[in-house]
Amino acid sequence: MSGEKLRSREQRKADTLAKLTAPAADVWVATAAVDADGQASSYLVPLSLAWIDERVVLATEADSVTARNITRQGRARLGLGPTRDVVMIDAELEQAYGLDDVPAGLARGYAAQADWDPRESGGGIQFLVLRPRRIQAWREVNELPGRTLMRDGAWIT
Amino acid sequence: MSGEKLRSREQRKADTLAKLTAPAADVWVATAAVDADGQASSYLVPLSLAWIDERVVLATEADSVTARNITRQGRARLGLGPTRDVVMIDAELEQAYGLDDVPAGLARGYAAQADWDPRESGGGIQFLVLRPRRIQAWREVNELPGRTLMRDGAWIT
Repeated sequence: MSGEKLRSREQRKADTLAKLTAPAADVWVATAAVDADGQASSYLVPLSLAWIDERVVLATEADSVTARNITRQGRARLGLGPTRDVVMIDAELEQAYGLDDVPAGLARGYAAQADWDPRESGGGIQFLVLRPRRIQAWREVNELPGRTLMRDGAWIT
Repeated sequence: MSGEKLRSREQRKADTLAKLTAPAADVWVATAAVDADGQASSYLVPLSLAWIDERVVLATEADSVTARNITRQGRARLGLGPTRDVVMIDAELEQAYGLDDVPAGLARGYAAQADWDPRESGGGIQFLVLRPRRIQAWREVNELPGRTLMRDGAWIT
């Protein structure tokens, strides 16, 4: 892979926040479930996100596989791309809200960053507020050292 | 979400194969494990792929989380991006090989498409040959109908 210039931790954090706050940003959301036979199965889907108060906020159908897995397991692993400029986030579910009990500012903040407004979609939407526990960012193999930017929920300084 | 033109199934299949055969193509690989406490946990990482004989071939460290999850669970969910032009693949593990027992043509084929050659990396690399069971492709919400291109391992015609 390439000999691209290594970024400092400060630069990686700035690039990470730029990705997380970009208008209409999408994130790959990987979740898991234990099937009836005791085997684990993984699920993966891209969703629009908002970055609000250092939380990743998703909005999706409450009966979707992703929402069910997150509310049951209490966590997800998130990837922002492209694949050679990634941000990986291990996050835990802090709160889940329906359209009736979502704080107005949260719903407004989501709609302001995402390119759709769940409040206009009616019905069974769930807002999922995910708290990052670990954030890593790297481009190519040479950036694997120093990729951890947040550990145990705290930015490394 | 946009009013972009709907692609035919034929076009989506052609676009999907173009993504799968692109030089240095990467794929998001979502896998899962059952933790000691009985909870499921998901893992997600981008890896280089090769498309050989209608199989997705990955190569990664045998002791990586991804390799361990795939060999234990026998399956993975794969996503090729970008997030608004996705191909989603549910695949099952057909074969896993080490550097000693990998068929020469498979290793050569992988190195020809990927931008690295696992044979030169020494040690604990595992080739994972994944057989697609279901393939879906869509760009925006309007393309969700008709997104399934392969079902039960067979292309829909």
